[in-house]
Amino acid sequence: MSQRVGVALVGCGTVGGSTAALLLDQEEKIHQRSGVHLELRYIVDKNFDVARSLELPETLFTEDLDTALSDPEVQIVIELVGGTGFALELSRRVLKAGKHLVTANKALLAHHGAELFPLAEQNGCSIGFEASCGGGIPLVRTLYDGLMANTIDAIYGIVNGTCNYILTEMIEKGQSYDDALAQAQADGLAEADPTLDVAGIDSAHKICIMASLAFGATVDLDRIPVAGINRLQAEDVAYGNEMGYVIKLIASAVQTNRGCFVRVEPAFISMDHPLAWVGGSFNAVSIYGHAVGHTMYYGRGAGGSPTASAVAGDCIAIAGGAYPIQFKQINIWQGKTKPATQLDPAEIHQRYYLRLMVQDKPGNLGRITTVLGSKGISLSSIMQHEIPESIQGDSNEPGSVPIVITTHRVKEADLHSAIREIENLAAVQPGSAVIPIIDEHPEFREF
Amino acid sequence: MSQRVGVALVGCGTVGGSTAALLLDQEEKIHQRSGVHLELRYIVDKNFDVARSLELPETLFTEDLDTALSDPEVQIVIELVGGTGFALELSRRVLKAGKHLVTANKALLAHHGAELFPLAEQNGCSIGFEASCGGGIPLVRTLYDGLMANTIDAIYGIVNGTCNYILTEMIEKGQSYDDALAQAQADGLAEADPTLDVAGIDSAHKICIMASLAFGATVDLDRIPVAGINRLQAEDVAYGNEMGYVIKLIASAVQTNRGCFVRVEPAFISMDHPLAWVGGSFNAVSIYGHAVGHTMYYGRGAGGSPTASAVAGDCIAIAGGAYPIQFKQINIWQGKTKPATQLDPAEIHQRYYLRLMVQDKPGNLGRITTVLGSKGISLSSIMQHEIPESIQGDSNEPGSVPIVITTHRVKEADLHSAIREIENLAAVQPGSAVIPIIDEHPEFREF
Repeated sequence: MSQRVGVALVGCGTVGGSTAALLLDQEEKIHQRSGVHLELRYIVDKNFDVARSLELPETLFTEDLDTALSDPEVQIVIELVGGTGFALELSRRVLKAGKHLVTANKALLAHHGAELFPLAEQNGCSIGFEASCGGGIPLVRTLYDGLMANTIDAIYGIVNGTCNYILTEMIEKGQSYDDALAQAQADGLAEADPTLDVAGIDSAHKICIMASLAFGATVDLDRIPVAGINRLQAEDVAYGNEMGYVIKLIASAVQTNRGCFVRVEPAFISMDHPLAWVGGSFNAVSIYGHAVGHTMYYGRGAGGSPTASAVAGDCIAIAGGAYPIQFKQINIWQGKTKPATQLDPAEIHQRYYLRLMVQDKPGNLGRITTVLGSKGISLSSIMQHEIPESIQGDSNEPGSVPIVITTHRVKEADLHSAIREIENLAAVQPGSAVIPIIDEHPEFREF
Repeated sequence: MSQRVGVALVGCGTVGGSTAALLLDQEEKIHQRSGVHLELRYIVDKNFDVARSLELPETLFTEDLDTALSDPEVQIVIELVGGTGFALELSRRVLKAGKHLVTANKALLAHHGAELFPLAEQNGCSIGFEASCGGGIPLVRTLYDGLMANTIDAIYGIVNGTCNYILTEMIEKGQSYDDALAQAQADGLAEADPTLDVAGIDSAHKICIMASLAFGATVDLDRIPVAGINRLQAEDVAYGNEMGYVIKLIASAVQTNRGCFVRVEPAFISMDHPLAWVGGSFNAVSIYGHAVGHTMYYGRGAGGSPTASAVAGDCIAIAGGAYPIQFKQINIWQGKTKPATQLDPAEIHQRYYLRLMVQDKPGNLGRITTVLGSKGISLSSIMQHEIPESIQGDSNEPGSVPIVITTHRVKEADLHSAIREIENLAAVQPGSAVIPIIDEHPEFREF
């Protein structure tokens, strides 16, 4: 293929600017390496500050979206506007015009994929979305191509660099959540309003897309339970670390015989698990296939240049002709798939970390373990640190001390019922910490 | 696509048996997920012990290769014979017959890819070789598809599970190389004749293929310097560990302005680098793209079921129609590429670990550092442990003690010249250990 394929890029912020720079600077190299000749014809935005700072050619700048979209030479439109308002309108227009859409917009796809994917298919075009799940890491391809012979058993992902940066600071420097967030904001790694990241919403968008791809079934975003990192206590991060665990915000999707569990929550990962090693703003996703076993993919999940790598990769694959074939084969939101059977997270069985605040008096530990035993909850470890006599105070009222417990596998509903009962004991303060523990997923189911 | 695509599998050992089982067991699921209907029609071998142990259907067993190859329904032939003798003859026949070839045979491709790839193109068919570089890890796809917009700056791979298992045993249990090898053989993780693995030859085949793909230039296997793990001393593994490094057999390919360095050698990796975390028989490959930065891919690089995942993935991609398009775009051994400029490894600049055995007498350390200084070699650290007086013996002849040195970046040729001079000193024994140190490769070159 030596034919030129015209590209219009809409939205020239950090990612858009890097994408335009990459397409222009690598135009000849991409042609040499892949035979594909991508020609960036328009950079559409209302603000060209980023574009100018990167010294992109002014001749490409335009505010006139209509001209760009109606140019018959433009076969691929890159949407880097973000959000679900104008981006949705734009995407509809692009697909209805029979042009391919490339996007990094996870919110758009998680909310409106069920509309946009069939629309693409009806109009004989495709949606490239590699950049939506893991920034520059080729995860989407891995799911629809590399691991296609596998039944995917589980996905565990660290897919938000802002959260992982904050958690790494909390682990390594013993910082509080608030201090670590302020540090991330100062370093340009967290937004002024960090809610989308720290509350786990961005991670939910990504696992919604990945789980739908992996299971060949439409996962409903609204039915994904989401907990963020914003309520984590520094002391739990430290206690977990002492016991051999690292805290991570984990977006998970686990297939079972009855259906799947898809959720986002802070969890402890054993230091033996490769995900525990992933520090700072890096992302990584463990994918367990029934034949391949455990695989993991690591890299930069955000940022201009890494995201541009994925966006440009999609443009090459579309222009080269392979992706439009693959897109037709992807069972995701195309009316070909059924809704996924998303199970109630209260039904999940896993291990847990508990921190209870308990009055330091004889008999209290016995009362707690009795309640746990009566609910069939088996303990894996208990840790209560000595409190130096000198700081116990001279009053006759004993203070509360943390008792940290790890359990064997237990149904989450049973655990919460036990904790309610334990917190009714006079000696126990409310507000216990409950954090799941994620062990290595079993490899190699029989097939 | 609902048309059936016939497949013949030749060579039913561990990988062949797992591949046949996967294709048969997942036939319907693969059809549902990808629309592709793969039909395994022949299992060709002379020995069906593995096939029978997996209870594969006897109706597919045949010793008659000609019938399988001449069946017009067979469009894909899977070569899992291994080696470069019969496998080469078979591959030529398959391609000349215009059938697609899928293989896990890195030796075949590293030695004869330059013949086979153009042969495939001339006959309008393709060669699927995902399983040749990282077993089940989708590495080949990542290089020709996911990261296609990148100029690849460097690849560092742990691509031999046998070696990594042996090294992990040496690190964690302080075992000698011989004991760890015996353990690996007992665990079925090393062959009776382990040369191909432990001498680094298998790793050389893999980096030859990956570097050719990454750089879009033909890397010559015969010009890849190879050192294995079979001469490693347990004490160097331990000293390195103490200094914050982990020993790994690293297959590397680094692009520079003047050409590339492609080699295989045991190297120390800083514990901060993700490759240091890869233990046991797992493989992992770090790929640095100029736009995406550092990415890493982890999983099982060998074994029946993981390799079958990659082989079956190639069959799906061929039958689905995307891979034949992609194959034409891959610049590897197709007469489209030039030979890579492979630089003399003596010209490489990197950091090194040295262990010198030196008589424990005043002035010797000064003589050594003087030689190093005269060659412009700058030291990063020196470590000499105290020897307890009690074990120094009562003779007046002082024994030799190890002095461990790490250097700043130095040209390998200069280092070797310095070591020759140092070993000429009366106080220094011959046979110093010299092990390169691989730091995190710089991310984000300007583009």
